[in-house]
Amino acid sequence: MQYQNFRNHLSKTLGVPVDGLEVCSSFYEVEEVKKNEILLREGEVSDSTFFVEKGLLRMYSIDKAGKEHVIQFAPENWIISDTTSQLLNEKSRFYIEAIEDSTIIVTKDGFFDNLAKVYPHVAEKNQRLMFNHIKNLQNRVNALISTTAEERYLDFLKKYPNLMLRVPQWMVASYLGITPESLSRVRKELANKKFII
Amino acid sequence: MQYQNFRNHLSKTLGVPVDGLEVCSSFYEVEEVKKNEILLREGEVSDSTFFVEKGLLRMYSIDKAGKEHVIQFAPENWIISDTTSQLLNEKSRFYIEAIEDSTIIVTKDGFFDNLAKVYPHVAEKNQRLMFNHIKNLQNRVNALISTTAEERYLDFLKKYPNLMLRVPQWMVASYLGITPESLSRVRKELANKKFII
Repeated sequence: MQYQNFRNHLSKTLGVPVDGLEVCSSFYEVEEVKKNEILLREGEVSDSTFFVEKGLLRMYSIDKAGKEHVIQFAPENWIISDTTSQLLNEKSRFYIEAIEDSTIIVTKDGFFDNLAKVYPHVAEKNQRLMFNHIKNLQNRVNALISTTAEERYLDFLKKYPNLMLRVPQWMVASYLGITPESLSRVRKELANKKFII
Repeated sequence: MQYQNFRNHLSKTLGVPVDGLEVCSSFYEVEEVKKNEILLREGEVSDSTFFVEKGLLRMYSIDKAGKEHVIQFAPENWIISDTTSQLLNEKSRFYIEAIEDSTIIVTKDGFFDNLAKVYPHVAEKNQRLMFNHIKNLQNRVNALISTTAEERYLDFLKKYPNLMLRVPQWMVASYLGITPESLSRVRKELANKKFII
């Protein structure tokens, strides 16, 4: 079956019955994107949400000095979008880019409305996804002001297993809000601790 | 007229007509709280949103070492609540405390449902408040990973005018995710720049 990850998302997370999955296929589009391809640019108003069927995306901002700052990674089964731009119809402050060749399911603004017309309980499941989005942002703020670089790195490994093997270290450091040198030091210290244990 | 700030919020932000303000009064409660009084504790499930009519609240977490980390300040006209605990019915990871003697308007979970029964367009206005909440959290994450201590401090002054006079410096440093020593240095450097200009 094609796009198995997205189909699982529809049935398990959104509660679309298995025999109804074909109905949904008119509500989304599939895009094959190449590494380094940009799906959203600063200044654009976003109307799309990206579900990662295969591959890896990231959302980042660029500061005045031209430096990139990673807000979020999205490997397989993750959803990524600039919710603020989408919901408030404002120009985005962010970029979304493919870090690997990827297969992306693109849903547009009307996706949930269309789906909820056929399956009314989807609206509630979607609202829960938004509440979880708020929870993740709140936890990320709390982690950024209250945890050490080492704690943040360990959380990263738990949240994104195996991603260290797929992402350049400077991007991980940027996501953690630390310098690449600090990340190297943290990794070295952790390796030493393991050695002692 | 009593509770003028909250009445303005109802009429201007939520679009409740002026002659309908009396209808709302059965949907909320007013609490007078003393400095240092705690309105929400870690481990509790929150069902309340606090509108600050007068005074000042803060939301914070306490880490394993017992250190406090300030997530948000809420002076007059601000709304503060642990949305995650409220929306997902989960135990809170945070505390909400009065920093000054305060007059607080407490609305419970059913507030917007009750209000929307009488004024249906309130539901949409309330959704927009939630979208703005997401925007603020997203901007705070971006600021924490991408801006310098000085930039963050200047943003703080813009976001919370006059709050430096009402809040101990260590709390401001905690909110900015920097040490009190770094905050002192930033303030000294800014004062020096001003002197030169």
